[in-house]
Amino acid sequence: MSISNETLELMRNHSSIRKFREDPVSEDQLTAIIGAAQMASTSSNVQAYSVIAVTDAALKSELAALAGNQAYVAECPVFLVWCADLYRLREVARPHLNSAVTYEGSTENFIIGTIDAALAAQNAAVAAESLGLGIVYIGGLRNQIAAVAERLGLPELVYPLFGMCLGYPDQSPGIRPRLPQQAVLHRNRYDAEETVRQVDEYDRIMSDYLSKRTGGANETPWSAIMAKWIAEPNRLDLGDFLRSKGFLRR
Amino acid sequence: MSISNETLELMRNHSSIRKFREDPVSEDQLTAIIGAAQMASTSSNVQAYSVIAVTDAALKSELAALAGNQAYVAECPVFLVWCADLYRLREVARPHLNSAVTYEGSTENFIIGTIDAALAAQNAAVAAESLGLGIVYIGGLRNQIAAVAERLGLPELVYPLFGMCLGYPDQSPGIRPRLPQQAVLHRNRYDAEETVRQVDEYDRIMSDYLSKRTGGANETPWSAIMAKWIAEPNRLDLGDFLRSKGFLRR
Repeated sequence: MSISNETLELMRNHSSIRKFREDPVSEDQLTAIIGAAQMASTSSNVQAYSVIAVTDAALKSELAALAGNQAYVAECPVFLVWCADLYRLREVARPHLNSAVTYEGSTENFIIGTIDAALAAQNAAVAAESLGLGIVYIGGLRNQIAAVAERLGLPELVYPLFGMCLGYPDQSPGIRPRLPQQAVLHRNRYDAEETVRQVDEYDRIMSDYLSKRTGGANETPWSAIMAKWIAEPNRLDLGDFLRSKGFLRR
Repeated sequence: MSISNETLELMRNHSSIRKFREDPVSEDQLTAIIGAAQMASTSSNVQAYSVIAVTDAALKSELAALAGNQAYVAECPVFLVWCADLYRLREVARPHLNSAVTYEGSTENFIIGTIDAALAAQNAAVAAESLGLGIVYIGGLRNQIAAVAERLGLPELVYPLFGMCLGYPDQSPGIRPRLPQQAVLHRNRYDAEETVRQVDEYDRIMSDYLSKRTGGANETPWSAIMAKWIAEPNRLDLGDFLRSKGFLRR
């Protein structure tokens, strides 16, 4: 790459960490990480997210089990749960409202909360890595989302997008190749043919990558893995759960 | 703050830029920015997003109008449109499918695409700022989302989350204070009382901040602004639009 600086290098070297040393994450580090998260952009300054830092060992174990027995959720020193949060807004707005009709449950506001939480989380990820810590996002937290929400005491209008393990890395998993840039970057107009065509090249790249990591045991092309993924009836209770929490009502 | 480094400082100094110099963004810069975006985490490596770099002047003007006449959309040298994209996945999966039933349209996959796009975009924002560029997210792109999708040729299973102006800053707007950290950071359990209580302090902070920026003309507390925001019937067509694009079907 021709252009470089410390921050770009940091992002280029990202890989998810699933094995952590026992060393703790300090309160100062956590403050810095969440502080960076808070500086991410937010729609109309609504800051429609919350994050729960889980350090209680028993609770981490419970969440690890709920997320599909991912041991690193229990083993990392701090497990962050990132939530979209329209609850805080509705509560603080209440005394000022002239109208009985409000729209916190709209699809638009669901998207706003989801985006706000994701932008904050990604800043946190970059901040953590800048401090020599490692992270992995835990989408498995949506496997049994109602149980997770109950266990964390999430009120109406709050839902957990994902978890994030945080701690000092005890592995160097290497960098997984991404799609060719031309597959994700379009010019002035979505190029449906090109985005699909570029996957041929990526199928070869990922086949090689998998083969090398498994000593030749697995060389499934990416598109075949995606076919399996898309045919899986994954987390189909999510829509009902979200509506039960007051989201996606309009 | 006690802990610091170049990357943390960069994130702490973020503010949205709405006035840009005419200097172009180079192809090398764009490559580096999108490259950083691609290195963000992605759920099960699905990379369910696309980004459209708009540099055509007429198209930028049209999008500026559709986004509520935000002049900086037309004025910035590069306008990025960040999209959740399940279309590419479905297309490349097709030849490998054994099953006629697939779940690309589930609420879960809508959330995955939305999160993947947001994480990538936030890495792009940080990368851009590390190069001395400025950005602003444009949620107004959802004001007339069907027209935007049509104008950019977005196929089924692709939707624009937001735009992002990119260019050299021609202003220094200063940093907007965020909620106290205790309002967004919970410990082991969601603390509904504390998150609301902390807003009293933020109401004072934002009142002062607004008053200073408007020479005393405006000192509306944040919670009152939020009340107005939550009572607005904003973008209520979004759910129908998304379903028409194949999202949120289950």
